[in-house]
Amino acid sequence: MIATLTSSIVDAVQQVVGHGAVPLHEPKFAGHEWQYLKECLDSTFVSSVGQFVDRFEHELAVYTGAKHAVAVVNGTAALHVALRLAGVQANDEVLIPALTFVATANAVAYCGAIPHLIDSEERTLGVNPLALRDYLQTITEISDGQCINRLTGRVIRVLLPMHTFGHPVELDELLAVARDFHLTLIEDAAESLGSMYHGRHTGTFGLMGTLSFNGNKTITTGGGGAILTNDSELARQAKHLTTTAKVPHRWEYVHDQIGYNYRMPNLNAALGCAQLEQLPEFLGAKRHLFEQYQAAFRDVSGVQIIQEPKDCQSNYWLQTLMLEASVAHQRDEILAATNKAGLMTRPAWKLMHHLKPYQDCPKMNLPVAEGLEQRLINLPSSSGLILRKKTSTNQEPL
Amino acid sequence: MIATLTSSIVDAVQQVVGHGAVPLHEPKFAGHEWQYLKECLDSTFVSSVGQFVDRFEHELAVYTGAKHAVAVVNGTAALHVALRLAGVQANDEVLIPALTFVATANAVAYCGAIPHLIDSEERTLGVNPLALRDYLQTITEISDGQCINRLTGRVIRVLLPMHTFGHPVELDELLAVARDFHLTLIEDAAESLGSMYHGRHTGTFGLMGTLSFNGNKTITTGGGGAILTNDSELARQAKHLTTTAKVPHRWEYVHDQIGYNYRMPNLNAALGCAQLEQLPEFLGAKRHLFEQYQAAFRDVSGVQIIQEPKDCQSNYWLQTLMLEASVAHQRDEILAATNKAGLMTRPAWKLMHHLKPYQDCPKMNLPVAEGLEQRLINLPSSSGLILRKKTSTNQEPL
Repeated sequence: MIATLTSSIVDAVQQVVGHGAVPLHEPKFAGHEWQYLKECLDSTFVSSVGQFVDRFEHELAVYTGAKHAVAVVNGTAALHVALRLAGVQANDEVLIPALTFVATANAVAYCGAIPHLIDSEERTLGVNPLALRDYLQTITEISDGQCINRLTGRVIRVLLPMHTFGHPVELDELLAVARDFHLTLIEDAAESLGSMYHGRHTGTFGLMGTLSFNGNKTITTGGGGAILTNDSELARQAKHLTTTAKVPHRWEYVHDQIGYNYRMPNLNAALGCAQLEQLPEFLGAKRHLFEQYQAAFRDVSGVQIIQEPKDCQSNYWLQTLMLEASVAHQRDEILAATNKAGLMTRPAWKLMHHLKPYQDCPKMNLPVAEGLEQRLINLPSSSGLILRKKTSTNQEPL
Repeated sequence: MIATLTSSIVDAVQQVVGHGAVPLHEPKFAGHEWQYLKECLDSTFVSSVGQFVDRFEHELAVYTGAKHAVAVVNGTAALHVALRLAGVQANDEVLIPALTFVATANAVAYCGAIPHLIDSEERTLGVNPLALRDYLQTITEISDGQCINRLTGRVIRVLLPMHTFGHPVELDELLAVARDFHLTLIEDAAESLGSMYHGRHTGTFGLMGTLSFNGNKTITTGGGGAILTNDSELARQAKHLTTTAKVPHRWEYVHDQIGYNYRMPNLNAALGCAQLEQLPEFLGAKRHLFEQYQAAFRDVSGVQIIQEPKDCQSNYWLQTLMLEASVAHQRDEILAATNKAGLMTRPAWKLMHHLKPYQDCPKMNLPVAEGLEQRLINLPSSSGLILRKKTSTNQEPL
């Protein structure tokens, strides 16, 4: 039988992850998860107040180098609150990548604002700063210190790039664009816990950054997210807004603005503390998995495994295969064959303007994003694929 | 020393709950909590998909008699989605009690709608149906099948009563008002899990009802809530909207509307399953606690312990002392003395129009709610106060 591209890809993936059913990404609980959950129960503090929430926030801040971390129910809530605190108002526009998970656009919509879609670059899979600069030069003017979209008359308030599959965007260039066009930079770092840009953690470059600890992320709290910031006043406001904007008082229930019930429960934070302790090990395994995929795909022509951008460290959250344009038409065949073989794979998300609720959003030309939508395939990426192997000589695999 | 009202109240509370620090409401984990959390970890399904979420929803439906229960991250999210599904749009008005927790009003605001504040009755502490009917007769007209507020020109879309501290509102009368004025009835049953109106569970009378499992509720999931409904299509839509409105597909990410990341994580549902098994025991203890408070306060004049309305069973979530109007001015002195003695007490919430974000909301005259704001004091209400006593002859108190 002649090897087709599809069969070669199935073979290469199985060479790395073995045969049988393999999920796209499953969490690993091999640390103090059980102990901390038990301590949490014993304390009776399972809800929005408790020592694990405080500890998780402190340890996240220490790990990322952000001055403050505020833990919330999920990454979407983190984005929503970050945008509110950045002053995003109804009818503003927010620049987001066309290639992202829908939560990025939803958080903008929750503010009554309008996502404005930006093209990607192949090197980082994220917002292309040069194309963005050219585009903004064409369509905007600065008036009273605000960036105005001349085509719509609306204020463009925030630039919200996303670190796709854990690969950092070109932050230096994007910060320069934000400065030159009077935009606030907020980083959607939902996928990039553990990813570094020029030696500094993603999510700490913009005014705020947001993390996600959903079940499919590098570490999980069941459901959860966090806001990172170096601004103490913003951190205070983030905590206030996410705890129903309740003003401290011995007994009175005074709420001074429309707040949210977005605080992370202590139970979920207990899981997070245990997971965070294992993050370095998870990151090592994910890097090792990348190397194995890279080796396995070295001789498969027409595809390549995506590598971290220069001067960056990716967390390699999701391992990603990029098809050359000439074989992009085989994407669905490859997805079908891998999934049929029990290897869970998936394409990148549909571009935001290909979704009904965002089909009429303003957008620049999106040639790269349109191409990537057809050319990216995520491969099984659990750190357990490596950690299990490493211990397979023991009697008790982890 | 002559006993003052305040010292008599401290004495009466201590007679029931003993001396030392007593919280307002703490959860009790004496069932299968640890076992289910461990099973959840071992399954690796801690996030928004998992057997405990399905089981918790099924068991909630069975317990309440609702056809469907959809589990979400908290009671606020449940209200938000229920209002969206009831068709509440920007600039609509929603009738809510002036006396409620701020989440009721916030959920209305999240829809871009305006809370319209209604007076309470002393008997149930909830919306007064007779006063509401008179008021609506004065200010509304029906046009094209919609209830129009003639004073503002806006559509009044939903009537959203809340079962205060677990005591059911007068549902028969409110359903009649809703029918006569073309309003959709949704029940904020955040506080009333286990409370019955005429033999049927609260939250199952309106088009939808919402529950909360916050840490201070009768049962807890850390953070959590649920939507109850007998309408299968609404249940399907609730699940769809709370899972980012993702359309099922083998691999594509299609979202057909602006959805939410509101699904309850499996980890929290595991806790919920264990808690729900103990609900009958918790309810028995809370009823017993009520009887003890009632006995302890029998001879304290000027105050009474609030009892469930006729033909209703309250869950007695929070035990509540009502001051007679003549001693209402002593409320803060009583709050200070009880809290100083380690007995955590609190007043009812500030009325919604006494909060800055809702100060300009439309409202009827609120004489009863204004009075109750000054006259209600919640007392320590944990079911553990009774369950601990009952087992105090054992060597190992629970």
